[in-house]
Amino acid sequence: MADPVAPLPPGAVIGILGGGQLGRMLAMAAARLGLRARVLDPGADPPAAQVAPHVRARFDDEPALRAFAAGVDAITYEFENIPLPALALLEGLRPLRPSSRSLETSRDRFEEKRFLEALGLAVAPFAPVDGLPDLTMALARLGAPAILKTRRLGYDGKGQTRLASPDDVPAAWAALGGAASILEAVVPFTREVSVIAARGPGGEVAAYDPGENLHEGGILRRTRVPARLSPGLRSDAVLIAARILSALDHVGVLGVELFVVPGDGQSEVLVVNEIAPRVHNSGHWTQAGCAVDQFEQHVRAVAGWPLGDGARHADVEMINLIGDPGPELERHLRAPLTSVHLYGKAEARPGRKMGHVNRILKPAAGRG
Amino acid sequence: MADPVAPLPPGAVIGILGGGQLGRMLAMAAARLGLRARVLDPGADPPAAQVAPHVRARFDDEPALRAFAAGVDAITYEFENIPLPALALLEGLRPLRPSSRSLETSRDRFEEKRFLEALGLAVAPFAPVDGLPDLTMALARLGAPAILKTRRLGYDGKGQTRLASPDDVPAAWAALGGAASILEAVVPFTREVSVIAARGPGGEVAAYDPGENLHEGGILRRTRVPARLSPGLRSDAVLIAARILSALDHVGVLGVELFVVPGDGQSEVLVVNEIAPRVHNSGHWTQAGCAVDQFEQHVRAVAGWPLGDGARHADVEMINLIGDPGPELERHLRAPLTSVHLYGKAEARPGRKMGHVNRILKPAAGRG
Repeated sequence: MADPVAPLPPGAVIGILGGGQLGRMLAMAAARLGLRARVLDPGADPPAAQVAPHVRARFDDEPALRAFAAGVDAITYEFENIPLPALALLEGLRPLRPSSRSLETSRDRFEEKRFLEALGLAVAPFAPVDGLPDLTMALARLGAPAILKTRRLGYDGKGQTRLASPDDVPAAWAALGGAASILEAVVPFTREVSVIAARGPGGEVAAYDPGENLHEGGILRRTRVPARLSPGLRSDAVLIAARILSALDHVGVLGVELFVVPGDGQSEVLVVNEIAPRVHNSGHWTQAGCAVDQFEQHVRAVAGWPLGDGARHADVEMINLIGDPGPELERHLRAPLTSVHLYGKAEARPGRKMGHVNRILKPAAGRG
Repeated sequence: MADPVAPLPPGAVIGILGGGQLGRMLAMAAARLGLRARVLDPGADPPAAQVAPHVRARFDDEPALRAFAAGVDAITYEFENIPLPALALLEGLRPLRPSSRSLETSRDRFEEKRFLEALGLAVAPFAPVDGLPDLTMALARLGAPAILKTRRLGYDGKGQTRLASPDDVPAAWAALGGAASILEAVVPFTREVSVIAARGPGGEVAAYDPGENLHEGGILRRTRVPARLSPGLRSDAVLIAARILSALDHVGVLGVELFVVPGDGQSEVLVVNEIAPRVHNSGHWTQAGCAVDQFEQHVRAVAGWPLGDGARHADVEMINLIGDPGPELERHLRAPLTSVHLYGKAEARPGRKMGHVNRILKPAAGRG
């Protein structure tokens, strides 16, 4: 660790905190590059344990964390809900990429919004809410409708509720169980796009083309690339991601969700919805559309290897498989220019992400 | 095993005999589809053991083979040099795909040639050689120059030697250590192409576009798709592969190496060089050029799942990384539209395949 930017040698071990599908695909990307992965996860048989050695331990088990760190060369994480003391401990033992700062900033919606605002980026008007009086005042200031979101632990539409009028205040506050929250004004967006970008330990940045996301019930259903964006907005989206990466001194992949909002006249503007300090569901299309996908790009950054070419060689639609895919699965398996990814989860609960499908719509124009 | 064509359920376990880079990439393809892999290999840390559970045992260890079979739902193999009694044992316990027949036919150059000839396919003139007198007579009949090849265990240019004249007979026979061999006439080919094709247990066939191979020192260096072939020859090549698949009742991927030979006038004809009853180095380009690569296609066939679309969406060049890649590796990591695959081998001996590179040359015309 004398030179923090020195690349890890082939065969080095990447420790991954979290063994879900993102950890699984990160482990497989590491293997493609001749690196080894090791996964720490409290579950008995998490998806990533099928493709890499698995240490079963809780994220607050200090002796287990120390032993894990001793057996790996660098550490990364696949999700945000890791206790900060665990990250601080690991960060003192091995390169942690991205650092705890990226996680601290992005896992609390209030901190995240303040960080983005301080960078001069447009965000939805917001206010912290720590009790009923706060909520009443915040709604008066931001106006209805508005969305109340827990500051932490929200994902896939969980931990949020919509207020149509001041009458909804008590029910909304009860719905979130009185957790520390923020109220956000509703942004009148016409579509949501996201940018997946990566930054290496030396500051090198590579961004993928923005994808356009379709959510249903708060869960991402589809991403399509290219997104419908003017050339100016496309460039803005990538620049926003690059600014966030640099401001966080982030190492690894980061996902930025953006709202496209009508501006003055014909113009449109981008409003940052949220960031994720990791590989992101809306970047799964890169497996089919790019020579180096988001998982490999993240591993390269963590290992201090050169970032790969993020150029897109095809138009792609990514479709999430949520709950039991049933006969839909066979249709996807037989479809032209289509690849199916399943996560090895035994139980197909409703709303659970079981896999995804990447469909090449057409080779990208003007490439090669 | 009531219905031999019934698909394996998601989460089923594919047993892979052999833990080299082909077994490794098969295991990773199984994981992409939500299937599990288990690898049997006598080595201490073979490449596939980094991505799937590994049973360390020799291929003639009957109790180990029985225990291995008991823990998997179907069995496949990544290379030809597995004792036939082991395969016969396993075939009685679990579906073995491809069957021992595919392996028996292709692992002996004499049997392979006779099989191909009986199908009416063009092969180089050949004769079995079991001793010095055989060799002298065979050379007189076929004419010099000719190539003496061991019937078994040859790969990457090993186990073969060229005879320029009858004077070379004693040295050639000594060079191969007196092993059972065949003498082959030298085919005046202008280029070598290969077809990778797959067949499911129900007889369904899917073929990839032929690739054009460049060998150096008997080792494959590069494959480029599309191969330079007339539309007629391209179609012939695919039909040859389909006939071989059906004649063997083969289940899984099969590679067919073909020589392109000048015929009468402007025409060219195809001569079958050899077949491999498995995924093949000259099919690695499918990882970059197709939605479903040869490894996943093989796993689908073994699992009885629908074969995927073999259509090519890009022109690709595959480059083998042989021996220590050195600074070449960094160049490939930074190259546009390029993906690097490393096999996790610790020691880069000269001539050893350490990885490969797929470079997208351009999106394929007329697709999508």
